[in-house]
Amino acid sequence: MPVRLTTKDDDFEARFTALLSAKREDSPDVDETVAGIIADVRARGDAALIELTAKFDRMELTPDRLRFTAKEVAALVADVPRDEMAALELAAARIRAYHERQLPEDASWQDECGATLGWRWSAVSAAGLYVPGGLASYPSSVLMNAIPAKVAGVARLAIVVPTPDGVANPAVLAAAQIAGVDEIYRVGGAQAIAALAYGTETIASVDKITGPGNAYVAAAKRRVFGRVGIDMIAGPSEILVIADRDNEPDWIALDMLSQAEHDESAQALLITDDPAFADAVEAAIEARLETLERRAIAGASWRDFGAVIVVEDMDEAASLADRIAPEHLELCVADAESLAEKITHAGAIFLGAWTPEAIGDYVGGPNHVLPTARSARFSSGLNVLDFMKKTTMARMTPGALKAIGSAAETLAQSESLEAHGLSVRARLDKLNDA
Amino acid sequence: MPVRLTTKDDDFEARFTALLSAKREDSPDVDETVAGIIADVRARGDAALIELTAKFDRMELTPDRLRFTAKEVAALVADVPRDEMAALELAAARIRAYHERQLPEDASWQDECGATLGWRWSAVSAAGLYVPGGLASYPSSVLMNAIPAKVAGVARLAIVVPTPDGVANPAVLAAAQIAGVDEIYRVGGAQAIAALAYGTETIASVDKITGPGNAYVAAAKRRVFGRVGIDMIAGPSEILVIADRDNEPDWIALDMLSQAEHDESAQALLITDDPAFADAVEAAIEARLETLERRAIAGASWRDFGAVIVVEDMDEAASLADRIAPEHLELCVADAESLAEKITHAGAIFLGAWTPEAIGDYVGGPNHVLPTARSARFSSGLNVLDFMKKTTMARMTPGALKAIGSAAETLAQSESLEAHGLSVRARLDKLNDA
Repeated sequence: MPVRLTTKDDDFEARFTALLSAKREDSPDVDETVAGIIADVRARGDAALIELTAKFDRMELTPDRLRFTAKEVAALVADVPRDEMAALELAAARIRAYHERQLPEDASWQDECGATLGWRWSAVSAAGLYVPGGLASYPSSVLMNAIPAKVAGVARLAIVVPTPDGVANPAVLAAAQIAGVDEIYRVGGAQAIAALAYGTETIASVDKITGPGNAYVAAAKRRVFGRVGIDMIAGPSEILVIADRDNEPDWIALDMLSQAEHDESAQALLITDDPAFADAVEAAIEARLETLERRAIAGASWRDFGAVIVVEDMDEAASLADRIAPEHLELCVADAESLAEKITHAGAIFLGAWTPEAIGDYVGGPNHVLPTARSARFSSGLNVLDFMKKTTMARMTPGALKAIGSAAETLAQSESLEAHGLSVRARLDKLNDA
Repeated sequence: MPVRLTTKDDDFEARFTALLSAKREDSPDVDETVAGIIADVRARGDAALIELTAKFDRMELTPDRLRFTAKEVAALVADVPRDEMAALELAAARIRAYHERQLPEDASWQDECGATLGWRWSAVSAAGLYVPGGLASYPSSVLMNAIPAKVAGVARLAIVVPTPDGVANPAVLAAAQIAGVDEIYRVGGAQAIAALAYGTETIASVDKITGPGNAYVAAAKRRVFGRVGIDMIAGPSEILVIADRDNEPDWIALDMLSQAEHDESAQALLITDDPAFADAVEAAIEARLETLERRAIAGASWRDFGAVIVVEDMDEAASLADRIAPEHLELCVADAESLAEKITHAGAIFLGAWTPEAIGDYVGGPNHVLPTARSARFSSGLNVLDFMKKTTMARMTPGALKAIGSAAETLAQSESLEAHGLSVRARLDKLNDA
């Protein structure tokens, strides 16, 4: 049974803190193995990739088989049912429209001393997306990673996706095609991350790597960080639903189960101000768990990590939500917008009972790659800026240098950086001579 | 002597590639030591901090001495010369004005199916800045880290700065005071990073850690990444100057030396289309190196990592600049703005001969914390967004859910996520019943 906490209980603070700090995932320490794999790919390129793929994915490749050909992609995509293609296209169009609004603006202005200042945004030249194989191989995640990159203007976008025993997921390839991905490689694991970061004979290196993966992939991303940019290291998914009694318990139950069914380490939390409503949701979850296809996974997640918190009022709910900093936050209350204003830390907020979180996973428009494990305190969901960078610009005039140069000289001297000061002084002297 | 490359030479490509991939810094592998230090601070808090500070910084602390009191800060700041205070205040005002323009806007709109979509920015609640002790303890870096955090709206901003043998840098404290830093602790090294990430009895944990440091600090930041946000792992500084013959060789020499004097691993590069001008700059550098205070450091950097590249024309210069992706790029050419448009990858661009890079280090306004080691390909200088995060918002209406809900259901089914589909279906059924 999931835990039930009540804020007015004496032991609430201790139990809530325990809930927050509970470790939901045992990441095995694979760092040494991963370091070896990366070194191997750096040293031997394609040959290492092929050997590691034979070992881990049980398939024999040759250098010219590393990449999916256009023909192979087309043949697989032809297998995707028509309604699924239409749904992917609708999702892609909505995700694209949302992310196009995130394109940042350049700036340039003249300040009061005559200097021209500003900045300029540009896209990274090449990005690589990791797509997991097996159970967690989601075409929707391909759209969510690839579309922001393409909207940002990334010229070269490569996907790596393991195809264990040679089995590829046609919907993943369809999503890649719809999103405009340029290259698709049938490799996975730490070796694929190494190939993207350092390049091999066949796979050119990229500048930024995004996308979820297992412990090996996460360790590899952490290791290549700095050589290339990476996105967040994602943990197991989580949802917090804040709901009052005026909700259909079954809807709330399904929303919570749609996180729980991802993964045994996923977490579904409910905060409500009505204990009877809490009971009703718990009962609805138990009822749905009797027939749900993924009841083994969802049941384990709910039993081990689920929790229901009964609060005195919605202000209390807001302050607990900030401490949880959930990846997904559903506000099923009368005035969801007002409640949202009281909450600072959340990856994505879903307002009102007509906005199930699953809409955001697929067709809402906002990204579904969101900060997990309380990292919404300091990071954002995947967005267009993740594939762009800013160059600052400055132009001094002789007048501007006269106005502010001697302050720079003073600071340079105080930091014992003589050449810094002299580079300004030489120019000021020229102005004084003139 | 620094290397001289000429693009029309047969071996240019090989030598340029070697220059790009040359490793300028030998980071010792301190990861295991750092892991131990972090574990110790997590387990024993203040006691570990105090022990490690005694060991590494040769000073005995007690828990109540970890933090500088307001009185201590005031006493030290009183030692800062008046012209230095004025220069710090001018710098702070200009940095603040520049960064205030970076504050992002929230967005909210209704799409064609009636859904309300958007996002909201918010500041991280607490940030920690690492300030190195000793040679690289720069008050200007305190301004550059602290001001963007305060402009972003960070409520609690803590500095950690080692004070080896009990010696503090008054200008660092002055900069912290001017920037509005809330707490200053006299601890450094990996132990300070651990304290900021996990908290101790005296130092509350933060959500984001920025600031430069040695190999131990860098390794600690990499280890706590995910628990908290971090900025880039900074490498040794570098500058690329692109200059035509119509420049004062001594000015260019000083600009290059102002990078070289930072660190023996720093790199100063010149690209010019005139071999005679290249000779003149080299001669000017040699001349300045005879008297420069930091001639030992600057000379070693110039000798070991300096390079001059002679190109056929400025288009060639632009394309090489993109491959170098320099931290600092000075464009000392007739039409610097046009040349800048041809270059995509650079941390900061300084336009025209009246804009020495040192202006950007102190009083220009843009940030001087910039991507090193070619990471300008995928990352930006420190900015206000580094201390903020975005929450996406979505509200469906019954009509919007009718329009796009079944596509979500289709995709959920194709990904075998039944509860996802059911959470949408339950609502659609209600609408159909109505």
